[in-house]
Order: sequence, then C-alpha cells, then structure tokens
Amino acid sequence: MTRDDALALDAADPLAPLREQFALPDGVIYLDGNSLGVLPKATAARVQHVLTEEWGRDLIRSWNTAGWITLAQRIGDKIARLVGAGAGELVVADSTSVNLFKVLSAALHIAAADAPARKVILSERSNFPTDLYIAESLARERGFELVLCEADEIAARLDGGIAVLMLTHVNYRTGRMHDMAAVTAAAHAAGALTVWDLAHSAGAVPVDLTGANADFAIGCGYKYLNGGPGAPAFVWAHPRHAERFWQPLAGWMGHAAPFEFTPGYRPAPGIARYLCGTPAVLSMAALECGVDSVLAAEAYGGMAALRRKSLALSKLFADEVAARCPQLALASPTDDAVRGSQVCFAHPEIAYPVVQALIARQVIGDFRAPDILRFGFTPLYLRFVDAFDAALHVQQVLDSGEWRRPEFNRRHAVT
Amino acid sequence: MTRDDALALDAADPLAPLREQFALPDGVIYLDGNSLGVLPKATAARVQHVLTEEWGRDLIRSWNTAGWITLAQRIGDKIARLVGAGAGELVVADSTSVNLFKVLSAALHIAAADAPARKVILSERSNFPTDLYIAESLARERGFELVLCEADEIAARLDGGIAVLMLTHVNYRTGRMHDMAAVTAAAHAAGALTVWDLAHSAGAVPVDLTGANADFAIGCGYKYLNGGPGAPAFVWAHPRHAERFWQPLAGWMGHAAPFEFTPGYRPAPGIARYLCGTPAVLSMAALECGVDSVLAAEAYGGMAALRRKSLALSKLFADEVAARCPQLALASPTDDAVRGSQVCFAHPEIAYPVVQALIARQVIGDFRAPDILRFGFTPLYLRFVDAFDAALHVQQVLDSGEWRRPEFNRRHAVT
Repeated sequence: MTRDDALALDAADPLAPLREQFALPDGVIYLDGNSLGVLPKATAARVQHVLTEEWGRDLIRSWNTAGWITLAQRIGDKIARLVGAGAGELVVADSTSVNLFKVLSAALHIAAADAPARKVILSERSNFPTDLYIAESLARERGFELVLCEADEIAARLDGGIAVLMLTHVNYRTGRMHDMAAVTAAAHAAGALTVWDLAHSAGAVPVDLTGANADFAIGCGYKYLNGGPGAPAFVWAHPRHAERFWQPLAGWMGHAAPFEFTPGYRPAPGIARYLCGTPAVLSMAALECGVDSVLAAEAYGGMAALRRKSLALSKLFADEVAARCPQLALASPTDDAVRGSQVCFAHPEIAYPVVQALIARQVIGDFRAPDILRFGFTPLYLRFVDAFDAALHVQQVLDSGEWRRPEFNRRHAVT
Repeated sequence: MTRDDALALDAADPLAPLREQFALPDGVIYLDGNSLGVLPKATAARVQHVLTEEWGRDLIRSWNTAGWITLAQRIGDKIARLVGAGAGELVVADSTSVNLFKVLSAALHIAAADAPARKVILSERSNFPTDLYIAESLARERGFELVLCEADEIAARLDGGIAVLMLTHVNYRTGRMHDMAAVTAAAHAAGALTVWDLAHSAGAVPVDLTGANADFAIGCGYKYLNGGPGAPAFVWAHPRHAERFWQPLAGWMGHAAPFEFTPGYRPAPGIARYLCGTPAVLSMAALECGVDSVLAAEAYGGMAALRRKSLALSKLFADEVAARCPQLALASPTDDAVRGSQVCFAHPEIAYPVVQALIARQVIGDFRAPDILRFGFTPLYLRFVDAFDAALHVQQVLDSGEWRRPEFNRRHAVT
C-alpha cells in the first residue's frame, strides 16, 4: 500500500461526499469519533436558531410551536432506523448511564416476577465501567449478584441462575463485537433476558434489535451519532416488555398525561414511560443534527455501505501499523465479522505518551487505561488517506522517540 | 396606582440596569420566568463558542482544555452562592426529577439505617407532580409509604412514623412559600429528614440551606436561573450526609477515579458522587450564562435586593388585578413572608382561555390545571410598568370577552 493507493481509494469512494457535512478542522486526522463525534456543519445554525428564535423570541410557546415536547420521540424514531427498532419504540432521554439504570431495573423486575430463583446479572469484566457500576448499584438495591466473566466464557456461564445478560455490543477498548442475534438466542435458551449497550454500535455498525429479538437496549448520542459533548442518550425496550413494569425514574415526562398535574403516577403507554424529566432542548437539537448526518448515508447505501467502508479503513490502518510498528500488539480482532468500527493496539509501557505525541501531531485517537491506543474510524468523514497518514504518524512517533518528551508523559484529568 | 406611578418606580429602581443582560422580545410582557427563564444576551455567543471552537475545532481535547470535565462543580459552586450552600457542596447534573430520585433514595437509606421503624415519606398533596411520582416510585421500590397532606397539616403529621419530609419550598401553583428553617427544625425534632425542591426558589427568593440545617435539596436550571429549555438541574446534600450512602445512579462521573476504568464502583468523595453520566456540555454552558445573569445582581444587593423588588412587583400586580377583576380569586398569599416570586389567581371555568387570550396579547403567563392563572415575577428583567400593564391586559381580556374566541379554548399539548 502506498499513499497514492490510498488516494485512489478515496477517488473511487462513493461515500466521499458525506464528508462535506462536517466542520473538520484543517490538518486534523480525527480517529476519536468513538469518543466524541465531530461537529456537523448544520448544528451551529440549528442550535443558534433554537437559542435566538425558539427560546429567545418565542419563549415558553416553543414547547408547542417548535415541537420541543415531541423531540424525544422524533429523534428517537430517527435513531430507531439505525438500530433496527420500530417507529415509536425508542426515545431519547437522559444519559446512557441513567437509561441503563431504567432498563436494567425493568429487566430485574421482570426476572423477579417470572423467574424469582434467578439472582445473577452476568456481564463482561471488560465492559465499559459505567455499565458495571450501574449494575453493581442495582444488584445491591435489589438483592441480585453481579457476576463478571470474559467474553469467551459467556456461553458456558449462561445457566439457570442468570436473570439478565448485560453486554456492550462493541467493546470500548478492543472493538470486539458480539453476534447480537446468536448471543441473545443463547441467553433466551437459558431463560435470561438481554440488555445491550449500543454506545459503540449505533451509527457505526449495522444493528437489528428486532431481528435479534433483543429485550432492552440503550445507547449514546455523542459518539458515532455526532450529537455533541454529553448529548442525550437513547433507550429501547422490546414492545413485549415496554409496559410490563414502571421504570423507577417515574418522572412527569413519562406520565400518561403530564399536563393534567395529577398527584398519582400513571405511566404513559409504550416506551414513553422511559422518559423522566424535562428534556434538555439545546442538546437535543444538536443531537438531531448529528443523527441526520448519519441518516444522510441512506442515499448512499446506508449502514451496509458505511460498514463496508469502516472495515476497509480500519483494515488499512491495522495492516499498515502492524507492518510498520512491531513494538505494538494488535488488540482488536482481525476478523471483520467481530470487529466494530475501531482498531486498538496495546503497549505495556508507552501507550499513553504515544497517544499524546500523536495528538500533538493532530492525529487524534485516545488512550484507554491501562495500555490501549485506541483509534476510531468513522466512515462518514474519514478518508483512506487519513488512515494511511495516521499509520505513518504512529511509525514516526515511535521511530523518532518523540513520545519520550516530558509533556507527553504528564497525565491529563480526562484521558 | 397610575401608569405614571409605575414608571416612576422604574426610574427609581436601582436594579433596572440588570434588564440589559437579556434578549427580551419587543412588546412581550413575560410573566413566565418561573416556567422558562428568558435568554441572556451572553448565552448565544457562549454556546456558539462551545460549538465551533471547543467542540468543532478542539474536539475531544476540550474535556481538559476547556474545562468541560469540571463544569458540574464550577456551575455548582456558583449556584451554591444563591442557596446558602458551601463551595464544593453542590453539583449540576441530570434533571430535577433524576436528582430527586438520588437524594430521596439516599434519605430513605439513611432512615432505614438509623430509624428502621419509620416507613413514611410525607409530602404535600399539591406538590409538583413529578416529585410525587418519583416518591411514589421509590416508596414502591423500597417498601415505604407516600403520605400526602395539606400544607397546614404538615406540623401535625410529623410523628414517629415519618422517615422523610419532602417538600417544594415554593408551591408551583400558588406561590406559597414554606419557612424552610422552621419546617426543617420541626421535622428534625420529630426525627425526620428533609428533602427540599428549590425549583421555584433558586434565583427567586433568598435560600439558606446551611442556615436552615436542611438535609438534601435539588433544583431546576431553566426557571429563575435562566439556563434554557430543559437546562440541567442541581443537587445538594448536607456534608453530614453526602458520603453516608451510594446514590443508586452510580455512574462513572460519580466514581472516585473515572478514567482509571476499573470494574468496581468506588464513589467519589463528597457531593461528586451524585454525578452519574457524561454531562450535557452545550446545555451546561447555557446554564452557566443563566446563573451568571443572576449572580450579576450581587453588585446591586444580591438576593435580598432581588427579593424586595420581586415582592413589590408581585404586590403591585396582585393589587391591581384584585381591584380591576373581581371575577378572579387571588390564589397566592397576600403575606409577603410566605409568597414566592409569583402571583396566581383562580377561576373555576375560564382560567385556560383567559391565559391564552393574554398570550395572544403578548402577556405571557401560564395556566396550571385545573383552574389557575399563574404569573411569575422575575425582578432581573421585569419593570414595574410591565406589572401594571399586565394587570390592565387581564382586565381588558375579561371585560372584552375576547377569551371566548374558539382559538383560546383549544387545548395545546403543553399548557
């Protein structure tokens, strides 16, 4: 592979026009869309409109006239198209952590009602920590036990004690992806419910919640959905479960008639009961622009086409780094079928300063403790030449020893 | 009182310059700052900067370089100054409903540990419904009972069965304000903990959580704090309680070391454990501008001066409406000591269309089911002549019968 080969791939790339949607800073190779997606050009104007016209001029009336009150459902229906959920089955609200609390709580209630002997939440030891913290907390509250295992052990651990299998579809560190349909089928065969975290999946890989017959799912708005820092998250429950129990964050936006102001809680039908408080309108508006930037790919073959390009980008980068940087160990799967939209390498000592040195060169990936260099590939705005150049930069940082500089070895608050 | 008298009051008003901070639409008399505060002029530029520079240009680096990671504490410290809390004792996060869930959960855990025979959450029947829904939900989850009474009955109901007294400081419908110090002392004397909702207090009336020796408090960012639609909310726990228990929404931002990515939850010291997921940065930035717009009053006498003007505004309006509109019954206290920053009237039949007719005249208050016309008085941006003119409009709407028009009798989704 030469740089000209990469440029040729870009010239032939049918998805290339999608990059024009984004306000990418000059000179930056951004391989961190799995941590914070880039700013769509449409977002600044949309948020400004919400600020000055909807809020500033129309004030409280905008709850009706600008449709603020239905943003959660409107954006939810758009995200549903990206994850194989039906219209009206998914809403946007709160954070990923808060939404996980809601669905895991519901799953534990269902398990307690249908299979009270099952007292275990099973998850992966390398799951994203906030998921484990929420599960640990709910397990304490409800008298369940959180049991952690390795990904390869899940099938063997699915026994009659498991109430809920809670997994992140694509691992945040390694990019390893579960076969959602097969794992869900195995969980159901063992009598367990499934809760899927789609943080690194929605907008990144094809997801078919309905086809997989999943039970509950939540996901993040600020990674591949380009919704902006701390964008609201989403929550889905299979229609067979949505109305079985209250979710405990029974706030007024999840009430059947919030503006009747009645003192007793009456949950809204369907997924709307998974809403809680007043929606963060500014952040929701930005999220909608981000989701629209992904839906724009529907005219170019949709998630299937994005997936093909994502795999090609990540394979190019992985192959080039592997060939150029023998010091680094590939930490992501080589098999396309089980790799999400990222590539990770590990180094036992210098992962952190190498990532900092790359950032100084405007090649932005991130470090994930304790030893991972993580590079996300967002096919909406990345070019093949970006993947090629990034690999060259990794090589140069290692070969030059510039990662040794003191400023690259000082830890930041957020890594 | 004549219109010239009102203009004279404005000419003599030392707080008048504060109005210049806001982008008020021409011709609007906005009496709904207790539902959605108005847009500060600084907000649009600040949010645009966050969008284009912090997010768009600096991307993921802004978690460190722009201080996104400490927004919750930085804005929390500013709000603390408005509610009598200490620095480091209050954080901004999530919604009011979600934060209520956190503190009520903690209060119930403390009660269960210290006084297990106490099984009642006591609240007011006319409390804001989302508070009652959250309490109803937690009571179900934890085996407590939610008991509702009238405001006047609270003192008599504080017996040995009460675990937690949960109140909104200023009633959302009537504007009636509790004496926080006296009620808290009575609750403590009876062995109960207190949870205060400051939704209609923060930025509206002087609050002294420390002086009142309150136990827990939460509040809203989008009313008197001018944070924008659905702005993040805040949460405070008295330092004696903050570390006693986990709050159940144990997400990664409340972890002692979130970026170590360890699988076990270890709560952060102090109030930081009341954080949960990734903060909604765009909404937080707007909230900070709103809070700053209230803190600007510190140069003019602070909350005490705002309170004096608020009471003068609301008294002027209440007196004028009472004199001009005998059809309406005053539903707010006349005693300054127990009236928040709003005035309400009731009418058994036509409250809704009268409010709609006023909105059509650009006099924006709101209807609260079943029979309340609610008018909020925000001394930061309202003038005495606004209060006077608003009373005239109420009279004209009633006398003209224009509230009978069909368009004013059609219900909107959000009232």
